[in-house]
Amino acid sequence: MNRISLKETAEFLRNSKDVYILIHRNPDGDCIGAGYSLQAVLKSLGIRSRVLCSDPIPERFAFLLPENFENSENFPAKTIVSVDLADEKLLGDLEEPYTGNIQLCIDHHVSNRFYAESVLLEEHAAAACEILYKLYRFMNIPFTEQIAKCLFTGMSTDTGCFKFDNTTPETHLFTAEIMQEFPQIRYDLINREMFDVKSPARIRAEMAMLGQMEYYLDGQCTMIWATLEICKENQVQESDLEGLTALSLQPEGVEVGITIREREPGVYKISMRSAKDANVSAICQGFGGGGHIKAAGCLLRGTRAEVTEKLLKAVEQAL
Amino acid sequence: MNRISLKETAEFLRNSKDVYILIHRNPDGDCIGAGYSLQAVLKSLGIRSRVLCSDPIPERFAFLLPENFENSENFPAKTIVSVDLADEKLLGDLEEPYTGNIQLCIDHHVSNRFYAESVLLEEHAAAACEILYKLYRFMNIPFTEQIAKCLFTGMSTDTGCFKFDNTTPETHLFTAEIMQEFPQIRYDLINREMFDVKSPARIRAEMAMLGQMEYYLDGQCTMIWATLEICKENQVQESDLEGLTALSLQPEGVEVGITIREREPGVYKISMRSAKDANVSAICQGFGGGGHIKAAGCLLRGTRAEVTEKLLKAVEQAL
Repeated sequence: MNRISLKETAEFLRNSKDVYILIHRNPDGDCIGAGYSLQAVLKSLGIRSRVLCSDPIPERFAFLLPENFENSENFPAKTIVSVDLADEKLLGDLEEPYTGNIQLCIDHHVSNRFYAESVLLEEHAAAACEILYKLYRFMNIPFTEQIAKCLFTGMSTDTGCFKFDNTTPETHLFTAEIMQEFPQIRYDLINREMFDVKSPARIRAEMAMLGQMEYYLDGQCTMIWATLEICKENQVQESDLEGLTALSLQPEGVEVGITIREREPGVYKISMRSAKDANVSAICQGFGGGGHIKAAGCLLRGTRAEVTEKLLKAVEQAL
Repeated sequence: MNRISLKETAEFLRNSKDVYILIHRNPDGDCIGAGYSLQAVLKSLGIRSRVLCSDPIPERFAFLLPENFENSENFPAKTIVSVDLADEKLLGDLEEPYTGNIQLCIDHHVSNRFYAESVLLEEHAAAACEILYKLYRFMNIPFTEQIAKCLFTGMSTDTGCFKFDNTTPETHLFTAEIMQEFPQIRYDLINREMFDVKSPARIRAEMAMLGQMEYYLDGQCTMIWATLEICKENQVQESDLEGLTALSLQPEGVEVGITIREREPGVYKISMRSAKDANVSAICQGFGGGGHIKAAGCLLRGTRAEVTEKLLKAVEQAL
């Protein structure tokens, strides 16, 4: 165990130089907020850095990037840091060049693989941005509006707008302090953009999925099938389906919600969610997958009937 | 202006006796949380009280009521208090017996009518429960789990789970303090129940409404028609439509979302929401209605085409 403390992390960062900040593929609000806030903090310390991601930053997160943003200044790395990255395998195209070379990892995932030389891990933090908030305060870094937006967005998105059970008293406390210091930020508009705004394709996708939701086990289990056919019929792309898994838990009385995406004919990506305390990670592990207690996944092959039967048997045993 | 301070309110309550606590019709999380937390606080001071509401408390708020709840102990009121009640007209059946008789009002609505002898009004508070949190702390009342749940639920529901622009730093700060003191409460399950769980009828209603959403003014304005026919076709009741107004603001680029419920043939209840800064209260005032800047309503009569034209003209001028 190569864990280090907040104090040691602060020292490491103050002594770092020419930093590459790695974030995970399919970047979300937390890793983007963590990466770009760290870049801003390092800059304020006179240290240049770059945020590296295998995928482009989605347009709706553009407000978190520094003004006059150009990722163009190129320099070789002297220090390599990762944030919100549980496993080097989540680096996408960056996995090959950087595996084994990461010196510091700052993360909140209980599943962290301890791949870095030094790891600042707080498993109970709701978001990497929650840890960074504490770290920056410890370092007496003056906050800018951009840093405040990054940290707020990271904490808000990773908790589903303070809704999920990973939300901690600190999530609320740090958010209160950010709001107090920066009353001019329109937090409501950030939340609207993150949680409420949907593309026409996404609205079509939701309707198509909800319209054919199936109920099993006395309504305790739902299934939503995103088959190739349904997606084609409704002009729905793979990217429109992100986050649709929450739909399966909407009906009253549901304990396990399953979303099934057909990757190619006969190959299904299973996303499983639980409403209260069912351990869907254990269920998915039985199929060679895994994840968190309340959100997990696996891959299954077969006909729709075969996949349905396998899933229902496993869920019934777990309930 | 008959405003009183937190200190004066505390004194009033400590000296009160046989209290009736009035809350508004169609009770929501904030007035229920405010009412029942106040009942618990008065009880801890040795003062008996009853919460009165013209409508039954919906089942999903039952967890906020005291254990072994019976509203049966009957006694004549010596003190009458209202919480979260902007206007006596919102009392429903209780309007007639209690109008003009309310001694203390504790409220957060900027539209408060100052109908009570004494008014503790904090217009910037996100919820009545946010004011009560401060009041109980000021009074040094020890919190119980029930009081904590009541105050959390009031603040969470009135802010859309900390999402809307009425959320204050205090909303987050007080929530952090409640979570710190009562880590055993499953806040995530309260939030799930309040925000995510939907009845089959509600899911049907959403699909029916989304399925016929109309886009106007280059997509800046949406309309959702809940006509008598659509509701009948989809087996949707009036009560299933509560809260559906948020749907109209989902599409990217929408600034004004309008939901139109047909009350009886040719009579339409208009609910208008704005995404950013359009003042829909002003638009609705033009039709004899009113409300908040970002959420307002009015009543219109005519054919569907006439109503559409009137609304679009007014929205176009406002944008």
